Amino acid sequence: MDFSSKLLENAVNEVSQLPGIGKRTALRLVLHLLKQPVEQTQLLSQSLLQLRESINFCKNCHNISDTEVCEICANPNRDESLICVVEDLRDVMAIENTSQYRGHYHVLGGKISPMDGIGPGDLSISSLVEKVKKGTVSELIFALSSTMEGDTTNFYIYKQIEGCNVTTTTIARGISVGDELEYADEVTLGRSILHRIPFESSLKNS
Amino acid sequence: MDFSSKLLENAVNEVSQLPGIGKRTALRLVLHLLKQPVEQTQLLSQSLLQLRESINFCKNCHNISDTEVCEICANPNRDESLICVVEDLRDVMAIENTSQYRGHYHVLGGKISPMDGIGPGDLSISSLVEKVKKGTVSELIFALSSTMEGDTTNFYIYKQIEGCNVTTTTIARGISVGDELEYADEVTLGRSILHRIPFESSLKNS
Repeated sequence: MDFSSKLLENAVNEVSQLPGIGKRTALRLVLHLLKQPVEQTQLLSQSLLQLRESINFCKNCHNISDTEVCEICANPNRDESLICVVEDLRDVMAIENTSQYRGHYHVLGGKISPMDGIGPGDLSISSLVEKVKKGTVSELIFALSSTMEGDTTNFYIYKQIEGCNVTTTTIARGISVGDELEYADEVTLGRSILHRIPFESSLKNS
Repeated sequence: MDFSSKLLENAVNEVSQLPGIGKRTALRLVLHLLKQPVEQTQLLSQSLLQLRESINFCKNCHNISDTEVCEICANPNRDESLICVVEDLRDVMAIENTSQYRGHYHVLGGKISPMDGIGPGDLSISSLVEKVKKGTVSELIFALSSTMEGDTTNFYIYKQIEGCNVTTTTIARGISVGDELEYADEVTLGRSILHRIPFESSLKNS
């Protein structure tokens, strides 16, 4: 693209570095900012810079937090012997939205993915293993995406804590609530038949 | 959405002010920045701030430009008696990419749109009318989008310069090159039949 302004070109180049945003979208966004009051751009860049420069992670669960220990870990009403292993903050938010979970979390910060150059050392796995080896954890719930990378990560952690006195579970896979059977894929439908549950327990939390 | 961090919430709120970006996408973008080196966020916010604070428009055609007069207006090889009226920079870039136009531009900065509260006073129409009234312009090409707002703006400008010694033209509407007739809408197809051109001239620029 041939821009008439170097400043504009720089801004478009930087914005198009963001995932899923190409040059055209970047240009649209930047031109939008130009039509808005200068304060909006100031607030936008300040908030991004502030977040990036003073970002803090909970020293317990590695979730993003402004305080040393996040709200969830600091809450005495939550069961700290129950740990849900998730990929990132978005999964914590999704599970919190269900209001069905009262334990702690452990945010890995990603999944083991050799293709993207992410090994176990890049994730906060060692601190999780340490926590489990201390013996205060009774159950570890794996709640990673059901992909090859997610399964690999689950299995890696499972191997690391072998022999520890801890129950490991994984969230149920099955047909989504409200879904029609005929449109479900075979793997999911197959699993949901294999791991069927007593009818009485399906009545509990609905 | 319930964020664990105030800084994160601020950043997501600011990013989601951009057009076409909701809270979820904003969160995805912000979390991406957190995984990148801090320099990327610094460059991003600096470039946006710099652009917004020191943005400059060509005093002749109102296009975005780092210099007082933009490259196109400053180019002595371009015909300044030919003015193409466009909405914004993107249209200039699109027309420049065709390499078929050697005149000047006039960037209006939008279209007359009462629904969005944009009247003729918000656009750079008066300077265009002034330019035409000086008598140095021989042809005015309307190249606005073919929407109600575009047509209104064309007509408004047309009325303003009535009586001036200037030819007004509009870019041709018709079937896109490579398109199949059966999928074209009736209005476009109808216009392309009404405004048919001699076969010889269609051979020239292909």
